Amino acid sequence: MRRKVYVDGAGVRVPFTEVVLSGDHAPVRLYDTSGPGSDPAEGLPELRKPWRRGRTQLAAARAGIVTPEMEFAAIREGVDVEVVRSEIAAGRAVLPANVNHPESEPMVIGSRFLVKVNANIGTSAVTSSVAEEVEKLTWATRWGADTVMDLSTGPRIHQTREAIVRNSPVPIGTVPIYQALEKVKGDPLKLTWELFRQTVIEQAEQGVDYMTIHAGVLLEYVPLAAERVTGIVSRGGSIMAAWCLAEHRENFLYTHFRELCEIFREYDITFSLGDGLRPGSIADANDEAQFAELRTLGELTHIAWEYDVQVMVEGPGHVPMHKIKENVDRQVELCGGAPFYTLGPLATDIAPAYDHITSAIGAAMIGWFGTAMLCYVTPKEHLGLPDKDDVKAGMIAYKIAAHAADLAKGHPGAQEWDDALSRARFDFRWEDQFELALDPETARSYHDQTLPADAAKTAHFCSMCGPKFCSMKISHELREAGMKAKSSEFVDAGGRVYLPVTGA
Amino acid sequence: MRRKVYVDGAGVRVPFTEVVLSGDHAPVRLYDTSGPGSDPAEGLPELRKPWRRGRTQLAAARAGIVTPEMEFAAIREGVDVEVVRSEIAAGRAVLPANVNHPESEPMVIGSRFLVKVNANIGTSAVTSSVAEEVEKLTWATRWGADTVMDLSTGPRIHQTREAIVRNSPVPIGTVPIYQALEKVKGDPLKLTWELFRQTVIEQAEQGVDYMTIHAGVLLEYVPLAAERVTGIVSRGGSIMAAWCLAEHRENFLYTHFRELCEIFREYDITFSLGDGLRPGSIADANDEAQFAELRTLGELTHIAWEYDVQVMVEGPGHVPMHKIKENVDRQVELCGGAPFYTLGPLATDIAPAYDHITSAIGAAMIGWFGTAMLCYVTPKEHLGLPDKDDVKAGMIAYKIAAHAADLAKGHPGAQEWDDALSRARFDFRWEDQFELALDPETARSYHDQTLPADAAKTAHFCSMCGPKFCSMKISHELREAGMKAKSSEFVDAGGRVYLPVTGA
Repeated sequence: MRRKVYVDGAGVRVPFTEVVLSGDHAPVRLYDTSGPGSDPAEGLPELRKPWRRGRTQLAAARAGIVTPEMEFAAIREGVDVEVVRSEIAAGRAVLPANVNHPESEPMVIGSRFLVKVNANIGTSAVTSSVAEEVEKLTWATRWGADTVMDLSTGPRIHQTREAIVRNSPVPIGTVPIYQALEKVKGDPLKLTWELFRQTVIEQAEQGVDYMTIHAGVLLEYVPLAAERVTGIVSRGGSIMAAWCLAEHRENFLYTHFRELCEIFREYDITFSLGDGLRPGSIADANDEAQFAELRTLGELTHIAWEYDVQVMVEGPGHVPMHKIKENVDRQVELCGGAPFYTLGPLATDIAPAYDHITSAIGAAMIGWFGTAMLCYVTPKEHLGLPDKDDVKAGMIAYKIAAHAADLAKGHPGAQEWDDALSRARFDFRWEDQFELALDPETARSYHDQTLPADAAKTAHFCSMCGPKFCSMKISHELREAGMKAKSSEFVDAGGRVYLPVTGA
Repeated sequence: MRRKVYVDGAGVRVPFTEVVLSGDHAPVRLYDTSGPGSDPAEGLPELRKPWRRGRTQLAAARAGIVTPEMEFAAIREGVDVEVVRSEIAAGRAVLPANVNHPESEPMVIGSRFLVKVNANIGTSAVTSSVAEEVEKLTWATRWGADTVMDLSTGPRIHQTREAIVRNSPVPIGTVPIYQALEKVKGDPLKLTWELFRQTVIEQAEQGVDYMTIHAGVLLEYVPLAAERVTGIVSRGGSIMAAWCLAEHRENFLYTHFRELCEIFREYDITFSLGDGLRPGSIADANDEAQFAELRTLGELTHIAWEYDVQVMVEGPGHVPMHKIKENVDRQVELCGGAPFYTLGPLATDIAPAYDHITSAIGAAMIGWFGTAMLCYVTPKEHLGLPDKDDVKAGMIAYKIAAHAADLAKGHPGAQEWDDALSRARFDFRWEDQFELALDPETARSYHDQTLPADAAKTAHFCSMCGPKFCSMKISHELREAGMKAKSSEFVDAGGRVYLPVTGA
């Protein structure tokens, strides 16, 4: 059985999912992003309203102040709040929390903490509706999304975002250039700084917690992408590149970056510095266009920090396994340890319709190497807009990748989940095994497909091997038959009773 | 369009799948394991019948002889046949080809070659039929299985295996202890060397190409598994452990190993030295039980080589990412470079129903580090017997892992596939993109879900972003509008026309 429980801290009450196990096995507590639940028409309760204050989380952290947000996030992570404060102060972690998004439950993103997963949703000109997107939001957080990006394009961008922010218990990210482009009816050449600035303020007022800003796509870098196999694959990147080349002027996001910092500081919006020149294919990975932009993102990171504005830096994309680590190493060096936030990367291009898997491979590895948040990829990547099933498939693949990374990083407590599940498996506690699974319903239904009877839920075997061939059953019989006693007796007796086969 | 083509070599004719592309784009040739196809009642044609000879592939390779099998495998791999011969001679590669399985198309397994994937099929006492298993075999090779293991237990083992071998264009592996145990009605204590020997000969006569032998589960190692979270999870390992402890004698597979070598040499059967003590959970990874057995497998590898018998060594299992590389490094050192053949490994235990994904992460990494063949894991792992859909899901996940590993190893030619697909993607050649996909049908159907019209197959956008936001469309427009010309002009002019934002 699963149930929601709360842990009290100094002025905060933090939700967890508790998995109650059979017999006297201790329950297991899991990080819970699903929020309090609500009627979409009403919106969520304003949890953070009483906490609101006049400075950014970064400014507070630097001043040695522990905010309720930090306290909340520390309890979720199971770490001392001083770790949260000091990592934020150093710029190595961010706590995205727009003052106008009081509905959100605070969380922290940084390489010292649990690896996070972002889910992208959003309408396009071709398909989807506001109600559908709110449903996807709720669905994504139910499967563990730590943040959600609303990437809506097409009509109704403002209303879609309003519905999403008011109903989101997790931080919401956007890419404001999409809405700016809608305002000029899709013609990048009509974009101006003033129009962009107004769009950012509009979204800031709504409560967007972090925004992707493609300020690193400099005019001089665009030619570097000309000979690529897949050119520029970032929507925002291609829009800014088109503007730069047509105007033959520098990217206005770069030239007005300090003004953006001032706006972001006012709302405590976190920068997600977009990698507009990320590689869109294995052939283009780790090329000069990509790394040139990364150097500029490093420069911008340090500028944002001057303004007490929090920063994440976005990363690729499509990268073969042997080139993944270099991405993290360079990012850490150039961006002063600011959290890295990567899209996959996909470890191969050959499997459209399975890019949740091609990218979970790269995501797990890059998470291990130090990426703080992974942007999920769904099976529909490269093919179409994800529906609810795709959102779930993407989330599951990425929760696997993130948890595998937590294990590999030796994150305190991460392995307890694996151990609890494996102990349930070894004990043939089938119901406990299902409840501890990332997706209990599917695990149960797969088991039922071949052995549907209730009796099979207590059987000491499954349909894979049948009763005679179950290694775990035999292991238990060995153990129960006094294997340990026999073993020590055997070891005491010298431990070797045979002639080595290598002998004459 | 896809079609089967043949490349002629010295006395051999090697099949490939050719993906024919639109316009004047060069076709792409893919490794093809699907075989010539047949009526299951008839069996496949006996391709290798005229080639059969009196010595093993290893003996021939050591004597400097190039067999037709080596020639065939070299063409499939796109390498010089001398590479195949010398790698086999050194024990770093195997070419599993029982003289009694003339239907098989030769292939080579070794870290210098393409990473291979094995699919497990087979009946159990609880479920499945002979016809179903032959259908799964054909289905597995259609999705790229390089070898298939028949792990049948329960009744009809002999008949199932006969049907599988006669219809298999790929090498077939088995675990003879399963049938031996059936012969003694499931009581491990009734197992004897003589019974096992007869079972091996029965299977050798049928044409099994490689056999898993759990000869490394020594009596003294069994106690090492007593305190594990999941004990012994290998079926063969647990059977032999039960026998050893009950008899208080050394594993008869170990004490009679040289006799096994003599039988294997007669048929040119390849050893797959089973890892009966592999870890079945993250908690048990890389423990003393596992590595103690690996040392013994190393000793047995060198013994088999004395008899001109080819050897692969099996590996884990469940291993967190940071402990994967040590498995390969130790295996290479202890087993003299004999091909490593691993099950996954699963990078976390928390996702039953998605273990094709948890394990594809580990499999891709271990393949990159040097594993020669990956044993697939299906979504039903830990829950039930895989059906056809599971076989496909497992195969796709593992072809992704294997190809990602080929890319990371820099295998010559591997990236051509990715590049061809990415070029098709960038050119909006949708049909070419689908045909080049690992699973064309699913890629096409996902695209059709949101944009079903035929016109959409030539559209310069998809439903993900719609027409205005397609980065690739914009990239093309940039390129077509003379981006290159503009760019060089710009670079020639000095490359900097803006004031740096970091300036005063």
